[in-house]
Amino acid sequence: MGLAGAPVAITVIDRRNHHLFQPLLYQVATTTLSTSEIAWPVRQLLHKRKDAETLLAAVSGIDAEARKVLLEDGGAIAYDTLVLATGARHAYFGHDEWEPFAPGLKTLEDATTIRRRILLAFERAERETDPERQKALLTFVIIGGGATGVELAGTIAELAHENLREDFRHIDTRTARVVLIEAGPRILPAFKPELSAYAQKALEKLGVEVKLGQPVSECDADGVVFGGERLAARTILWAAGVQASRAALWLDAAADRVGRVYVEPDLTVPGHPNVFAIGDTISIKGPDGEPVPGIAPAAKQEGAYVAKVIKARLAGKPAPPPFVYKHAGSLATIGKRAAIADFGWIKVRGQLAWWLWGIVHIYFLIGLRNRLAVALSWLWIYSSGHRSARLITQGKQWAGEK
Amino acid sequence: MGLAGAPVAITVIDRRNHHLFQPLLYQVATTTLSTSEIAWPVRQLLHKRKDAETLLAAVSGIDAEARKVLLEDGGAIAYDTLVLATGARHAYFGHDEWEPFAPGLKTLEDATTIRRRILLAFERAERETDPERQKALLTFVIIGGGATGVELAGTIAELAHENLREDFRHIDTRTARVVLIEAGPRILPAFKPELSAYAQKALEKLGVEVKLGQPVSECDADGVVFGGERLAARTILWAAGVQASRAALWLDAAADRVGRVYVEPDLTVPGHPNVFAIGDTISIKGPDGEPVPGIAPAAKQEGAYVAKVIKARLAGKPAPPPFVYKHAGSLATIGKRAAIADFGWIKVRGQLAWWLWGIVHIYFLIGLRNRLAVALSWLWIYSSGHRSARLITQGKQWAGEK
Repeated sequence: MGLAGAPVAITVIDRRNHHLFQPLLYQVATTTLSTSEIAWPVRQLLHKRKDAETLLAAVSGIDAEARKVLLEDGGAIAYDTLVLATGARHAYFGHDEWEPFAPGLKTLEDATTIRRRILLAFERAERETDPERQKALLTFVIIGGGATGVELAGTIAELAHENLREDFRHIDTRTARVVLIEAGPRILPAFKPELSAYAQKALEKLGVEVKLGQPVSECDADGVVFGGERLAARTILWAAGVQASRAALWLDAAADRVGRVYVEPDLTVPGHPNVFAIGDTISIKGPDGEPVPGIAPAAKQEGAYVAKVIKARLAGKPAPPPFVYKHAGSLATIGKRAAIADFGWIKVRGQLAWWLWGIVHIYFLIGLRNRLAVALSWLWIYSSGHRSARLITQGKQWAGEK
Repeated sequence: MGLAGAPVAITVIDRRNHHLFQPLLYQVATTTLSTSEIAWPVRQLLHKRKDAETLLAAVSGIDAEARKVLLEDGGAIAYDTLVLATGARHAYFGHDEWEPFAPGLKTLEDATTIRRRILLAFERAERETDPERQKALLTFVIIGGGATGVELAGTIAELAHENLREDFRHIDTRTARVVLIEAGPRILPAFKPELSAYAQKALEKLGVEVKLGQPVSECDADGVVFGGERLAARTILWAAGVQASRAALWLDAAADRVGRVYVEPDLTVPGHPNVFAIGDTISIKGPDGEPVPGIAPAAKQEGAYVAKVIKARLAGKPAPPPFVYKHAGSLATIGKRAAIADFGWIKVRGQLAWWLWGIVHIYFLIGLRNRLAVALSWLWIYSSGHRSARLITQGKQWAGEK
């Protein structure tokens, strides 16, 4: 957007054909929204921009010397200026062997995988005659108490304790346990302690068990071990950590523990004045000395700033002052009746925050059509309790299952 | 529905967790609708019916002697009365080796697979520099001129010639060829010849090439051979034939060429008075001596009839007269501006038939929510030309591709 009208030829390279609205991905995973309601074809978003072309391809590296992006299919794309916004995946802190048992949530496929596992757990519990195994099938563990973990836990609790209640004959879905495990001392650490405490209470009211200060030490097909005790659970979801893309490796650039590149104040990669990096790819601090959070508003501000720098360079004007992140506020939702919001000058919680959360998220969806579709889906669940995307698709079994 | 209030305990066994509205499946395959708009959880459809329970399981056979349905997971469900509505899959007339190259359309996964292939073909054509290979990528072959084939061909032509036109920079999607191959003398043989002719003209107006009287003799990763000539095409879709489920084998019952069970006039399987079969599982003739078509209205009439027979038996009343199929009419759509309808007493074609088609299909969707959602999606495409479900998900390559 920021480069519209500048004398440039833009190539957008993405390994996916769609732009994804990550903040609502958990709603696809929990049967509220369908995939197409939160994703848009990149090509269509840019179809009016004749200065831009879209390329569906996976990047394998960068030849900074030759100024070329290398593609997995053997191709190469020359550039004058490169902007890296390659994001992050979930990560298992050195326990990659946990992935099959505790899937994370970053892509549409992740979301439909989690949706399948949750729904299959109830289906299998309905047929299970052994009480212990049935209990494990009806135990849902979410590892990680950040926004994604809290939102997953709250929605799964609502699904089990309200929406699915009348649909089964041999199990009482209200007996399902939803356990949220956070290694740190409180959930939603990005919020003020009093909002964290409120969110925890709201979760507990929904029937979620919140376990704090206990990192998970084992994770397999049968459950997890945390705080020295084993909890039998057939559905484990991972919302505990991220790992940045390989951008730092491509450029041999200095990066933090999770691979986020340390950038210059103008968001270029050190030693590469024509390579910018933004979003989850980088590690920077805000004016308060706190790290800039890995959220969409930060990435958007960075993108707009980089466009300004590029335009100034092209026009031969002096460079704009260093990038400064402005925190607009933090929002998190707990089920369909509570949320917390912190805008610095005002903190809101409860039903009002929930409405605010809904309005903000619908506003940031791209296009009137998706806004209407998501509003319709929410309205429906709110009034009827029927979730519209309760589909088990793709795949047959879950990991560790015979 | 027909058994509501009867003194029965019903178990619905399905290998999928959702009921699928097949007539609109081609719209998922062609990026118009999302999966959840045409599918409903079986369990939720029946959640108010306390006399019914739902079982997610795959059937492996029937022990008619012991009156048990055998499940793939080793379980068995006892029955007094069994109703088989096990449907059909697409079939390749003894050429199963064609399946990887020419996927058919029966499930949600089939639809998202076809969607992925269509969208990837355009993406790859955009990057292809060899003109011959580019042409093959922009050639779409649909085999089979029934309703599904016609609907796929018409929608792909619209996608290529209208919706995607502005999105690419290196290809002109209007040059894409959409070729519909029908072995018989005309498309839509279920309709009167004049409506077939009209549908063909409407397809040709959309830019579809209709090839009649030429069966396909070869099919591989590079294209098809029909009428003795090879056509290079990287996307081939199969809409030519079906094969009934294995129900006939389970019961060792007499069946037609494609596996459809010949049933008694009361829709029981010969020799099994307590086993009924309906829908695509069976082969029966209508009052005019013509075969009852494999469409949803026929299956629904059969289901209602079987419920009547079962209720009469339970009440000790005489059996109802033999089943008689009443044909309500035939509808098919060609792109978003034309359709044909034949109700026997009146034939309609063109824009009016299209509106009729739309209203009938929205009416038969289950639930107000899906009706609103589908209406919204259609309205959007009709007014903006932007298709909302242009997502490439799951899998990376197509068969035969290196």
